[in-house]
Amino acid sequence: MIADKTYEPVEPLRLAFLGLGTMGGPMAAHLLRAGHHVTVYNRTAAKAEAWLAEVGKHPQASMAATPLEAAASADVVLSCVGNDQDLTEVTTGPQGGFHSMGRGTLWVDHTTTSAQIARDLAALGRAKGITFIDAPVSGGNLGAINGVLTIMCGGEQAAFDRVAPVLRAYARAVTRLGDPGAGQLAKMVNQICVAGVVQSLAEALAFGQKAGLDMHKVIEVISQGAASSWQMANRGPTMVDDRFDFGFAVDWMRKDLGLCLDEARRQGAVLPVTELIDEYYAEVQAMGGGRWDTSSLIRRLR
Amino acid sequence: MIADKTYEPVEPLRLAFLGLGTMGGPMAAHLLRAGHHVTVYNRTAAKAEAWLAEVGKHPQASMAATPLEAAASADVVLSCVGNDQDLTEVTTGPQGGFHSMGRGTLWVDHTTTSAQIARDLAALGRAKGITFIDAPVSGGNLGAINGVLTIMCGGEQAAFDRVAPVLRAYARAVTRLGDPGAGQLAKMVNQICVAGVVQSLAEALAFGQKAGLDMHKVIEVISQGAASSWQMANRGPTMVDDRFDFGFAVDWMRKDLGLCLDEARRQGAVLPVTELIDEYYAEVQAMGGGRWDTSSLIRRLR
Repeated sequence: MIADKTYEPVEPLRLAFLGLGTMGGPMAAHLLRAGHHVTVYNRTAAKAEAWLAEVGKHPQASMAATPLEAAASADVVLSCVGNDQDLTEVTTGPQGGFHSMGRGTLWVDHTTTSAQIARDLAALGRAKGITFIDAPVSGGNLGAINGVLTIMCGGEQAAFDRVAPVLRAYARAVTRLGDPGAGQLAKMVNQICVAGVVQSLAEALAFGQKAGLDMHKVIEVISQGAASSWQMANRGPTMVDDRFDFGFAVDWMRKDLGLCLDEARRQGAVLPVTELIDEYYAEVQAMGGGRWDTSSLIRRLR
Repeated sequence: MIADKTYEPVEPLRLAFLGLGTMGGPMAAHLLRAGHHVTVYNRTAAKAEAWLAEVGKHPQASMAATPLEAAASADVVLSCVGNDQDLTEVTTGPQGGFHSMGRGTLWVDHTTTSAQIARDLAALGRAKGITFIDAPVSGGNLGAINGVLTIMCGGEQAAFDRVAPVLRAYARAVTRLGDPGAGQLAKMVNQICVAGVVQSLAEALAFGQKAGLDMHKVIEVISQGAASSWQMANRGPTMVDDRFDFGFAVDWMRKDLGLCLDEARRQGAVLPVTELIDEYYAEVQAMGGGRWDTSSLIRRLR
């Protein structure tokens, strides 16, 4: 489930982890291996049971039937769910964790959400003595398995300092970028870059293939200079070979770009190319590619 | 004029170098230092005189009044001029080098041009016993000064093998990508990527700045992952600081994108975002930014 990793020594905490998807599952396992007590919750209980079985019915691992129950005895609650609505449900919904948490506890949310919900939950938490930190991640499933994610945080400095060593169980870099919502805004900056880089790579590679060039060779040559990118190095070759059955799905990318476009409208910023690429992704979805990797934008151009 | 460099030993040749701009000037100087005889030509003769003075009135350096004269006794003619029209003038124009070159000689063109002119000159050259190689470069003025350019070549394999060691006087990588025109097509692939990466970076950074983030810090954080690019590392910080008085000028980028769009139409490829970015660059030109670095796209978004 997870790769071996050397963890920095930390005081064992009582943690709750909500959401055991492709990201949350390995992240929760790293926390357990790092020495913490981990109570897991997943909307589909079978996934929580499977996780417990996979970590070998570890004595410090347990599961709860609701976020409310999972959070009741936790020092820190961590969540990695689908979207704003899912986060609302596990925090302030009828069975939400906020209702059972004591004063002085922490909530760290790894979901990619709007900045507004992060600000709202931070404000609501403050009134209840709960410190909320938005902490979206990048690095994908492989980053979670290897414990080398990048985490972008927004929230109070003191709480951040307390929880950062815990998060490093599955992260290479944990950085505070400002007040509540700042982590989400930084993640949006990241996704705007990714979308544009992938689209230009798609146009360039489809162009080169139509022109009859050996695109593996071209990628090798231009990968040293001003055109180079992580996407070119890591997705260029698979785009040339037309393989998309891995990576970060188009459906998820569209969710993220929706957040970017909403926030841009709120800030008075314009994202003309990002908006266009969001439409291109809608076309890929219509082609049946919702689960294809984001690099599948090139399929529109063939 | 150029940085120190250790050159691989090569048989000294009689070379002609046409076009002593920010790229050609240092390139010709490297050839001289590598041990060749170099006759230079520049449309504005004062530039050729200045180049001769700068290389210290070297005994193996001389200048010619026309391309015809420069090429007359050359084993290899190299050119680095402005565009297709300039290349036509120095090759087949009334005073063009093609008229004085002997059989078995070589022409290496470093100009970024259309693929079509490269194919045409290769065909015309073949009839005259001159082998023409298109060899556009990337790496900019600094790459030329340090002798670490990337050169993308199209043309005959045997001629390429003969000339590649000569070109390595100012290049780190010299690669043949196929038949005549293939070098130009690969350069277009490069420029399509650059344009898209810069635009997405511009949208992302302007968005983050409007949202009040410390963008230097955000760049540092996301520079490790899927959003990262050469442009983010090398132009992100200067874009945040609104500095554009260096680098690769918008006017030149528009010339290159024009070549890409023409060629795409010919190939039946579509470049929707590249086309849009070309229009954005036209807006930057209208703002008086023709000489600004390509990263100045962000100025439209502020």
